[in-house]
Amino acid sequence: MVAGDKSDPVDVLILGGGPAGYVCAIRAAQNGRQVTLVERGRVGGVCLNEGCIPSKHLALFAAAHPGCRDLAEFQTSRTAAVDKLVGGVSSLLKAAGVAIIQGSAWFVGQTRVCVEVGEESVRYFDFKDVVIATGSLALPMDGHPFDGERVVGPREALAWMSVPETLAIAGDDYIAVELAVAFARLGSRVTLTSAADRLLPDFDPDLSAAADRGARSLGVEVALAANPASIVEDAERVIVSGGRRPNVDGLHLSAAGIAVGVEGFRVDRQMRLDRHVFAIGDVTEGLPLAHRSTMQGRVAGDVLGGKPAAMDVRALPRVVYAEPELAGVGATEGDSAKLPLAALGRAVIDGSTAGFVKLVFDKGSGVITGAHIAAPRATDLIGEMTLAIEMGATLEDVALTAHAHPTFAEGALEAAELALGRPIHVRSLRR
Amino acid sequence: MVAGDKSDPVDVLILGGGPAGYVCAIRAAQNGRQVTLVERGRVGGVCLNEGCIPSKHLALFAAAHPGCRDLAEFQTSRTAAVDKLVGGVSSLLKAAGVAIIQGSAWFVGQTRVCVEVGEESVRYFDFKDVVIATGSLALPMDGHPFDGERVVGPREALAWMSVPETLAIAGDDYIAVELAVAFARLGSRVTLTSAADRLLPDFDPDLSAAADRGARSLGVEVALAANPASIVEDAERVIVSGGRRPNVDGLHLSAAGIAVGVEGFRVDRQMRLDRHVFAIGDVTEGLPLAHRSTMQGRVAGDVLGGKPAAMDVRALPRVVYAEPELAGVGATEGDSAKLPLAALGRAVIDGSTAGFVKLVFDKGSGVITGAHIAAPRATDLIGEMTLAIEMGATLEDVALTAHAHPTFAEGALEAAELALGRPIHVRSLRR
Repeated sequence: MVAGDKSDPVDVLILGGGPAGYVCAIRAAQNGRQVTLVERGRVGGVCLNEGCIPSKHLALFAAAHPGCRDLAEFQTSRTAAVDKLVGGVSSLLKAAGVAIIQGSAWFVGQTRVCVEVGEESVRYFDFKDVVIATGSLALPMDGHPFDGERVVGPREALAWMSVPETLAIAGDDYIAVELAVAFARLGSRVTLTSAADRLLPDFDPDLSAAADRGARSLGVEVALAANPASIVEDAERVIVSGGRRPNVDGLHLSAAGIAVGVEGFRVDRQMRLDRHVFAIGDVTEGLPLAHRSTMQGRVAGDVLGGKPAAMDVRALPRVVYAEPELAGVGATEGDSAKLPLAALGRAVIDGSTAGFVKLVFDKGSGVITGAHIAAPRATDLIGEMTLAIEMGATLEDVALTAHAHPTFAEGALEAAELALGRPIHVRSLRR
Repeated sequence: MVAGDKSDPVDVLILGGGPAGYVCAIRAAQNGRQVTLVERGRVGGVCLNEGCIPSKHLALFAAAHPGCRDLAEFQTSRTAAVDKLVGGVSSLLKAAGVAIIQGSAWFVGQTRVCVEVGEESVRYFDFKDVVIATGSLALPMDGHPFDGERVVGPREALAWMSVPETLAIAGDDYIAVELAVAFARLGSRVTLTSAADRLLPDFDPDLSAAADRGARSLGVEVALAANPASIVEDAERVIVSGGRRPNVDGLHLSAAGIAVGVEGFRVDRQMRLDRHVFAIGDVTEGLPLAHRSTMQGRVAGDVLGGKPAAMDVRALPRVVYAEPELAGVGATEGDSAKLPLAALGRAVIDGSTAGFVKLVFDKGSGVITGAHIAAPRATDLIGEMTLAIEMGATLEDVALTAHAHPTFAEGALEAAELALGRPIHVRSLRR
């Protein structure tokens, strides 16, 4: 069968069923478009099947089962959770009227895609609009390619049935830190190595320091400004978390006249590459974060529905399920105030006083521009600060908002008061 | 010694060192006033010494030590935490230059207070401004007075060294619910009885239902529309949580020409009763909540400092450390959308899918007017929704704010999308 053979006309064709693609599909369908979604594996993408969800699941399991070297129970639980979530997404897509085609797709023309739907079986689709949402792939370490067994990426590590005696992790990103903490809790002797001079090098330095302290407190050996390759030989298992690259392999973009950069597609605020070509999720330039993908998916779905939507996110939060939980949003540069968690009654009764709530703000206007939190529940606490930044809230706005006592959320209020030079539960910086 | 004897002139005199009084003291001192604080016991008040902090501490201990009938470890831990927090408040007061007088105070004139500072030893103070912050007292149940042993208030229950075999709790407020859940987890057979037809009768009905389900799931027998007195006889121990009344006993208010109602002092937005007489905290009309007290304390401290402050809280959150955590803020009446927690990946991997995030909003404007959450971490999640209400945020504002994945905080975004009729992770109500 060749291009030009019989093809099916489709309205909106979405390539990839991850958090970008499936969300876009549901939203576009809500807006009255007829949507066809092509996915080679299971819907839910990397996030749901092999990334965020299993990784956070392991973090929770490790915290609840310290020293548990047998991961059979985890894998059972993980499979159940992922199946439930994948099933949920599938049924939501069906309820929205989205047609799902299982197979691998590539462009064969400006408005035509070929999908291999089985061995030696292909179908052609002529689309009115196409959305590229094919995600990203893990990058290996130079000189130490993944071998699928001893040297693996995060995905394979999350499928292990037992906890290695010794584990070398090469990387400094949030995935490397989360896996180091989880496997240390489960009983591995973990070495975490990076060429960078701090963990989480693109987070606020205070969060880097907190990640370092927390990992070491669990026995992780942290080697910075080091050559990760040096640790590969000795460990029973090796995880390489070397970042991700856009997955455009085999898409035959040139057939559609589409270009892509090394960092992925550069799209406009409507997620367009061209009038009828959209790209969303990890294939676009920017951080590979599921919530960025879903936001882009919603925007593209609205644009496809003729709505005046645009990607306009001031504040993109990032969370790390480490020891303690870490979260950051917005600016890291500027005036700042850092409230030690020990000032909060909630932290004292929890025995978790090692963290902080740090606010970054504009001194003249008092507008909050960033927030960086190391605390139990930091991953949820960052929600309030993200809304604050999106709403243009000032320190006064947060300080004059009642925060229930005793909660960790009080940290935002106390940090705002500290920034305003009138702290109640810590001594003033200016005294 | 009689009125008219030698007295000490003081600038600002604060009666009571709880969350209202000590916060007001620190803030007034920050604003340049000379502050003297009279406290008969330890600073920190009911909240810190015998209320919120020990109660939430017990909730955490019970969740971490199910079936632990021996409370010695808890009491040691509780004492350490309270001592640390009381010590912290003391040293903050000292650092702020606040003079602390230990004793019981009463008015002997319009600008004069007498303080019994020891047996047969009194001191007189002539104040420029006075702040009444003497807190509240637990109310007993009609016909079953506290006996200090078997029939007690929450304070005494929190000091128990062991967990009773059978425990009857009379009440329906958040304290009764928290104690029922904690003692059920610790192994008591708990009966929770109220004359009302639902628990938490002044919360959103969905939170009442969640409290009921959660308590029953832990084996609590919940008897509603019942006579609490009927359960008193059978149980090994009885806790009566019958609300609180303003503590103005022995203040001799008439000597200062001050009147008080049954519900407490009615103050203006500057916390004034009279030009130089302020009242803050549980002695004022309104809910006896520590964070209301601290907010009033900050306002009064600013007014005392000549600043244009006023109590202007649109949204006063309330939290319950129950099963699961419950939290509510703002309106319970109006259009609403309720997102089941099962729609969140974070809840699925936690195995905690029984709760919800409910938003109440104005249909025309989309402005959020209330939020009611039953979820792990609800007590902290309510922070974002409280800020949303204070900032006048709309459903769109929350829906267009990126929420990190996977977190419980995503519930707010998903609930906002549901309210807007375009949900992603649940089916639309309107389909």
